[in-house]
Amino acid sequence: MPSIKALIFDVFGTLVDWRTGIAREARGILSPLGIELDWPTFADAWRSQYQPAMDQVRSGRLPFSKLDVLHRRNLEIVLMDFGLGDVAEPARAQLNLAWHRLDAWPDVAPGLARLRRKYRLAPCSNANISLMIDLARRNGLVWDAILGAEIARDYKPKPAVYLSSAAALDCDPAEVMMVAAHGSDLAAAASVGLRTAFIARPGEHGPGKGETGAGVPVDLSAASVLDLADQLAVIFPSPSSPEVD
Amino acid sequence: MPSIKALIFDVFGTLVDWRTGIAREARGILSPLGIELDWPTFADAWRSQYQPAMDQVRSGRLPFSKLDVLHRRNLEIVLMDFGLGDVAEPARAQLNLAWHRLDAWPDVAPGLARLRRKYRLAPCSNANISLMIDLARRNGLVWDAILGAEIARDYKPKPAVYLSSAAALDCDPAEVMMVAAHGSDLAAAASVGLRTAFIARPGEHGPGKGETGAGVPVDLSAASVLDLADQLAVIFPSPSSPEVD
Repeated sequence: MPSIKALIFDVFGTLVDWRTGIAREARGILSPLGIELDWPTFADAWRSQYQPAMDQVRSGRLPFSKLDVLHRRNLEIVLMDFGLGDVAEPARAQLNLAWHRLDAWPDVAPGLARLRRKYRLAPCSNANISLMIDLARRNGLVWDAILGAEIARDYKPKPAVYLSSAAALDCDPAEVMMVAAHGSDLAAAASVGLRTAFIARPGEHGPGKGETGAGVPVDLSAASVLDLADQLAVIFPSPSSPEVD
Repeated sequence: MPSIKALIFDVFGTLVDWRTGIAREARGILSPLGIELDWPTFADAWRSQYQPAMDQVRSGRLPFSKLDVLHRRNLEIVLMDFGLGDVAEPARAQLNLAWHRLDAWPDVAPGLARLRRKYRLAPCSNANISLMIDLARRNGLVWDAILGAEIARDYKPKPAVYLSSAAALDCDPAEVMMVAAHGSDLAAAASVGLRTAFIARPGEHGPGKGETGAGVPVDLSAASVLDLADQLAVIFPSPSSPEVD
């Protein structure tokens, strides 16, 4: 494998535990209103609207709208589905920002700190920039830049999202490694020339409900971000410099 | 003044000393080739091509090209003007990246670190993302995101650059303060509703050759980034939270 200069990361599922966080936030906001639900099921239902909403943008039926806007459209649907159409505006707005208040898996902050000594790092997520800023501040993540859908004005797995991230980093696609817990994301990145690393998050959708393997060809497969850092340190003992040369 | 949530920064001149750095880098690359020049004059000449090149993009005569590309076009002009048309390619490419290797004024890293405890921070520069990444790594600057021309696909002082930065931060323009050492930059930011802070860099263009005052109405005027942090701490003793609420 030729040397890489940068790593870009999927975020929901790969770096942060969205299901536990959304369930916690929904409970914290809705249960004081007297609402009782199966909170993880509510989180799953909200997340299930994610791909269909982005498909509207990917297909050109909807102009690019950032993920906070799509999350809000999806929230309206899910509240109706759960018979919660009378939840009032302040709670809806507060709930929509639940996606800004998710916790990273425990290996993420130390793993990224190690990788950043050697590589440029950026999220390449479908989330918007302000959402990435809030997750970074909450979890102590230091990025070199925030890349992804809001920069590309389109959603993964569209090629433009991966390619605009590489271009912003002044890298050829083969100099960038896409890191994700989802084989489909990695297959799309590989199809436009990026290197790929799978990180297993077997509990992403609840205990025993996550991808345990990429299911597609990848360059590396790791159990955590720290494990990825270990593997890269073996493959590239003399790392590329973080400084432009 | 209403509370602000974020500060965005001009970079060349305001945060980094481009003139000293370009002179040093040009000397380091060209003098081993037997070339002797007045290096600060070379830096000034290169910089003098900056606004005309961006004008090509602002006016629509040239599609958006990132600043590294414009710097390279400008370098060709300046090398010819200095009778250096025979400088070969590797040196040209290395010289063009001199803009990635500039030093920050001494108050910048500690000043930004203080401000970041209370506010979201991003560069809002005409430089491209990778250039901002390299300056941040070199000088130990921690940004929440890299905003500016490459995101807006246009150059300051076009309104889109300021407004896209505020939008990426989920802020109204009035919740964002633009910080610059140049009155024209601040006037443009104010005209689209941003708050403004002037920082004096009286030596930007050489001893005694920099703007000592904004020359236009601004919300704050400071001697350094640390002074700006001091002034904001007095105005807003109970700061806005860095977390979304």
